[in-house]
Amino acid sequence: MAMTPWTLHEDRALPTEPGQRGIAREIYRAIADLPIISMHGHIDAGAIRRNESFGDPAELFIIPDHYLVRMLVSQGYQHHELGVRPLDDGAPVETDHRLIWRRFAENWKLYRGTPTRYWLEHELVEIFGVTTRPSAETADEIYDQLAETLARPEFRIRALFDRFNIQMLSTTDAPAADLADHAALAAEGWGERVVPTFRPDVLFYPDRTGWRAGIDALAQASGVDVHDYPSFLDAIRQRRLAFVAAGALATDHGHLTANTTPLARVEAERTFAAAMSGPVDAVRAEAFAGNMLFESARMSLDDGLVMQLHPGVQRDHSAAVLAGYGPDNGFDIPRQVEFTRALRPLLEAFGLDPRFRLILFTIDETVYSRELAPIAGAYPSVKLGAPWWFLDSPGGMARFRELTTETAGFYNTSGFVDDTRAFASIPARHDLARRVDAGFLSKLVAEHRLGLDEAVETAIDLTHTLPLASYARRD
Amino acid sequence: MAMTPWTLHEDRALPTEPGQRGIAREIYRAIADLPIISMHGHIDAGAIRRNESFGDPAELFIIPDHYLVRMLVSQGYQHHELGVRPLDDGAPVETDHRLIWRRFAENWKLYRGTPTRYWLEHELVEIFGVTTRPSAETADEIYDQLAETLARPEFRIRALFDRFNIQMLSTTDAPAADLADHAALAAEGWGERVVPTFRPDVLFYPDRTGWRAGIDALAQASGVDVHDYPSFLDAIRQRRLAFVAAGALATDHGHLTANTTPLARVEAERTFAAAMSGPVDAVRAEAFAGNMLFESARMSLDDGLVMQLHPGVQRDHSAAVLAGYGPDNGFDIPRQVEFTRALRPLLEAFGLDPRFRLILFTIDETVYSRELAPIAGAYPSVKLGAPWWFLDSPGGMARFRELTTETAGFYNTSGFVDDTRAFASIPARHDLARRVDAGFLSKLVAEHRLGLDEAVETAIDLTHTLPLASYARRD
Amino acid sequence: MAMTPWTLHEDRALPTEPGQRGIAREIYRAIADLPIISMHGHIDAGAIRRNESFGDPAELFIIPDHYLVRMLVSQGYQHHELGVRPLDDGAPVETDHRLIWRRFAENWKLYRGTPTRYWLEHELVEIFGVTTRPSAETADEIYDQLAETLARPEFRIRALFDRFNIQMLSTTDAPAADLADHAALAAEGWGERVVPTFRPDVLFYPDRTGWRAGIDALAQASGVDVHDYPSFLDAIRQRRLAFVAAGALATDHGHLTANTTPLARVEAERTFAAAMSGPVDAVRAEAFAGNMLFESARMSLDDGLVMQLHPGVQRDHSAAVLAGYGPDNGFDIPRQVEFTRALRPLLEAFGLDPRFRLILFTIDETVYSRELAPIAGAYPSVKLGAPWWFLDSPGGMARFRELTTETAGFYNTSGFVDDTRAFASIPARHDLARRVDAGFLSKLVAEHRLGLDEAVETAIDLTHTLPLASYARRD
Repeated sequence: MAMTPWTLHEDRALPTEPGQRGIAREIYRAIADLPIISMHGHIDAGAIRRNESFGDPAELFIIPDHYLVRMLVSQGYQHHELGVRPLDDGAPVETDHRLIWRRFAENWKLYRGTPTRYWLEHELVEIFGVTTRPSAETADEIYDQLAETLARPEFRIRALFDRFNIQMLSTTDAPAADLADHAALAAEGWGERVVPTFRPDVLFYPDRTGWRAGIDALAQASGVDVHDYPSFLDAIRQRRLAFVAAGALATDHGHLTANTTPLARVEAERTFAAAMSGPVDAVRAEAFAGNMLFESARMSLDDGLVMQLHPGVQRDHSAAVLAGYGPDNGFDIPRQVEFTRALRPLLEAFGLDPRFRLILFTIDETVYSRELAPIAGAYPSVKLGAPWWFLDSPGGMARFRELTTETAGFYNTSGFVDDTRAFASIPARHDLARRVDAGFLSKLVAEHRLGLDEAVETAIDLTHTLPLASYARRD
Repeated sequence: MAMTPWTLHEDRALPTEPGQRGIAREIYRAIADLPIISMHGHIDAGAIRRNESFGDPAELFIIPDHYLVRMLVSQGYQHHELGVRPLDDGAPVETDHRLIWRRFAENWKLYRGTPTRYWLEHELVEIFGVTTRPSAETADEIYDQLAETLARPEFRIRALFDRFNIQMLSTTDAPAADLADHAALAAEGWGERVVPTFRPDVLFYPDRTGWRAGIDALAQASGVDVHDYPSFLDAIRQRRLAFVAAGALATDHGHLTANTTPLARVEAERTFAAAMSGPVDAVRAEAFAGNMLFESARMSLDDGLVMQLHPGVQRDHSAAVLAGYGPDNGFDIPRQVEFTRALRPLLEAFGLDPRFRLILFTIDETVYSRELAPIAGAYPSVKLGAPWWFLDSPGGMARFRELTTETAGFYNTSGFVDDTRAFASIPARHDLARRVDAGFLSKLVAEHRLGLDEAVETAIDLTHTLPLASYARRD
Repeated sequence: MAMTPWTLHEDRALPTEPGQRGIAREIYRAIADLPIISMHGHIDAGAIRRNESFGDPAELFIIPDHYLVRMLVSQGYQHHELGVRPLDDGAPVETDHRLIWRRFAENWKLYRGTPTRYWLEHELVEIFGVTTRPSAETADEIYDQLAETLARPEFRIRALFDRFNIQMLSTTDAPAADLADHAALAAEGWGERVVPTFRPDVLFYPDRTGWRAGIDALAQASGVDVHDYPSFLDAIRQRRLAFVAAGALATDHGHLTANTTPLARVEAERTFAAAMSGPVDAVRAEAFAGNMLFESARMSLDDGLVMQLHPGVQRDHSAAVLAGYGPDNGFDIPRQVEFTRALRPLLEAFGLDPRFRLILFTIDETVYSRELAPIAGAYPSVKLGAPWWFLDSPGGMARFRELTTETAGFYNTSGFVDDTRAFASIPARHDLARRVDAGFLSKLVAEHRLGLDEAVETAIDLTHTLPLASYARRD
């Protein structure tokens, strides 16, 4: 019983109020076909280089998507029943991908009202031509159709890259990454389309497993003998320059808090030395991480990389899930975050410097009107990134505009920045963001607070001009 | 001058946007007449057993309703002027109930825009047939009509129970309650309609007056000689089993914070022993209370009781009101609450266990999208209860859906759970919740983000299926 | 290309939903022409006394408006390029006001979606008759028109005072102010139209530069030899009485937090003595400030001044901007604020006293539903002030009503209170507040939750009755 036909309505996610809808349509039409700027993704450059296909439907849509897996886990499935491979090679894992797909399809109702549902509907209908709503009854039929479609050459990643009209895509890369895939892509003329991003978190939290291995990899990649804090900073500087040479425009920092307090030089040296010879506690590690944000900002003055900060997430809330399956399995839970005091040291030092640029993200909506918009509405270096992660949703994006625009305006935001691991969801996400911005602007026009011409120009800026300009090199 | 006639409009509290209203009506019609599941009330089982009548209009509507009294106090009335009896028997109290009713009626405007107004309008018009808006002029006339109506047999509690179409109602009971009223009701065949809930707060905060008396009552009710921490836990276990035998489905916990950190066994034993022999401070008491939440969760694995947690309220903010009139007189003020860190010990231990179920409530809206929805969207044991207390309101319920659905979906919520002490308000509250959910769903349908058939099914689930399933015994 | 003509639409900022719009219009029409009560402004009484003209367009609209300057600074301008005078007399400052105007006009798009844009549009069109939208092309033409207009006698401040229909305006005054301008205005019959407000912050934070000078000024103005804490309190009492004699109705307190904990007498005396003989640290100063809020409340019992509290702003977030240009230059950034615990000492002492009145403001929206509305909905002394500062905006005002009305009702709020330094923006701000309240009320009417007659009465109360009554002397 599907009372709504399984198609995408052209007005989906636009306001329904009759006075707004026509205006929203007109604004949306002006931006619907603009190319995609995707500056904060988690797509593998190697997959693009190798022009991979996406495997079977479970491999594309379910197993790697922790948004989607998480929801089935919340209703009683275990990760391995959905194909997520346990760290322990001897532990069971479902290998029947058709069965995994069925488990998903028969639980389609769990996603009602979520962006996952919205994106999947877009992907299945628009990209893959599915005409039936997922359910226990339709699971196999859709699986077969998708499997057949995914095997075709026009569904390999480069063909989709073109079809999706992606103008530029950033990957997220470890600080010791060799960037060979980026070099190879550049050699093929894709250097301006796919650029790396420097993500040094692994080096900044000396209490985390992997820190010491990260230091070793940093030394090797940079050619610097990393034995103390000065050589550590030097190696990071080298790697940043290598990233710049490979086309990178930005760094990315996923910290627990927004703390940017610099340590006294001697304290930073002592912490680094202590970490090189043994464990350091979480308090000291967090202080070191804050210091490294400050140092990263200082480096940005020289190399021009835009700094992106994503604080406020308690990673791996469930130790059992971490132990069983590793990180990034849907159990990262946000915590309250504070910016006004935390960013002050960094902004005092660099906030008015025309060479510095900082883009702020968070999934704590309580700081939008209270802290983020006032900061971005004053400091020339600061822009607000798009609503992130759980907030990359129709309501989340609408509330971001409602809670920041009155204080920061539109032009202190970066325009839409997705944060996806799911390549096929990129057009759905960008299209949805465009619809939500069109809806927000249409209200201003309908309430006679903005001219339609101004709204259209603003929408184009939010969609294309600002994402490009926010990351563009200035030298 | 009443420009709107004093009747209930069939579209009240539904969206006014023309594209949504028709859809909302259709969704609402599918759920309007479903039976009421009321799993978290404060109705006295004895009143049902005795099939009481409700007294006069002031006794039914004003004196026991701290929502309503509070508002008149905020404008200068003192509690005793509204019939609230002071603890001091010699202190004055208004005994002219007609005068109390007049004071309320002439201040009708204070309630504009509040849920109290909405519920009262529903009750007066729909249940009691009042046709005039309360005011100084109409106070006496309405009083007389209500007094006459309340005296009729069809306005006794059991007749209304049937008329309200209440399928199941939970009471809230002290841990030492003898449950005799429930037993008597069960003997009359009402055992499935009225069930108790185990509320042990009095035992968990050893700094509160009444703790020691609570321990004594616990010992007597359980038959366990409560002299140390192990016997204390044992007595609680016994009482929980007695509640289960009397039909209880859940426990309920009204804590200051959501802290669930277990104490080392020896520390718990020491705190209990200290409390048995003298006062303990608030910090130690709060730590003990957190420990007892952890232990309560562990007990739930064995006896299957669903755990309900309502943290974040500073009880008795005004010492003068507490000293004058006792607790629950409108001066409980919410405080900021934190869940991500506070619940972690409990969720680490039991969060993935299929035997454990936890329903979370709060009146701090800032955690909806940041903490509650991500937690419920991951842990299989966790569901989100309805917006509680001050948020049991049209806007409060709408924001709850807006801020949780995109991350947690609908199916990680418990459906509507009222929290009323006012029996006559139960249908109004449930009807309002159904209208708000219908309105929220109608927006998704109107924006082509959900099929109408899916919306209707979801509404039925939120109204009936989920409240039943969230509390139903699984054994 | 201006697709919307540069006029003010009569329905601007009213809801667009057809079922609401007609109702909103009717409510708005009932309040549109009510006189303005402006109880918390920063207009200079001397300017009114001297009946000043406003200078050139940059002097009126840009240089003194830190909302507006801040936005241009956030996009790369420096304050001095916009005419803001550096503290260092030798530092450069732009003196070509036509150029400053051009810089503003060509960046008109930055203000899209902000209240600054809304107010300016109202002022330029409605008050000054501008018919062209600001832009690089139109800057000079508008400048010339404005300059010509501003020179006319009917654009002097008293003529505008009448034209704006301002019934009463409060200024904000230092505790040692001689109030000579107020006396002169009173002598001319303007004593009821322009009243002072006692703002003692400078005396309450002994760690701030200016504290000692403030004490000296206090001693001189009060005639009290301020040498210890008792004489300090006595001098404040004297000054408050002088303000009362000059027509003052209220005190105003801009604190970092809402802390109201009284110090032990000996500790207050010690802190005061320490501050008189040398520096005190920020923690001790904040404790002293909290104590002084408590003492100020106690004084209000005697002299009847209404207490206004505006906590939660980190003043002068950028030390460089403070050092270069002084305070109030757009770099005040909000911080999270807490009321439930912070106000408890004060409310325990005075919250139920009929002589005490407290109006609470904040720019931290997270406390609206959680703390402010429950407090105002219980304590008879407390009212909620209008949304303040960055929240004095269409969305900010709408959210204030949405998040407070259901718990506190309308009648525990003060009605609209502006907080402007820009005289010409007063009618725009009040008109916008009326439109937003009309819109909020129209939704209640359209959803059949309020009668239209009730909504109209409520709107009149919010606009006129409540602001007058909230500040009116009761003796």
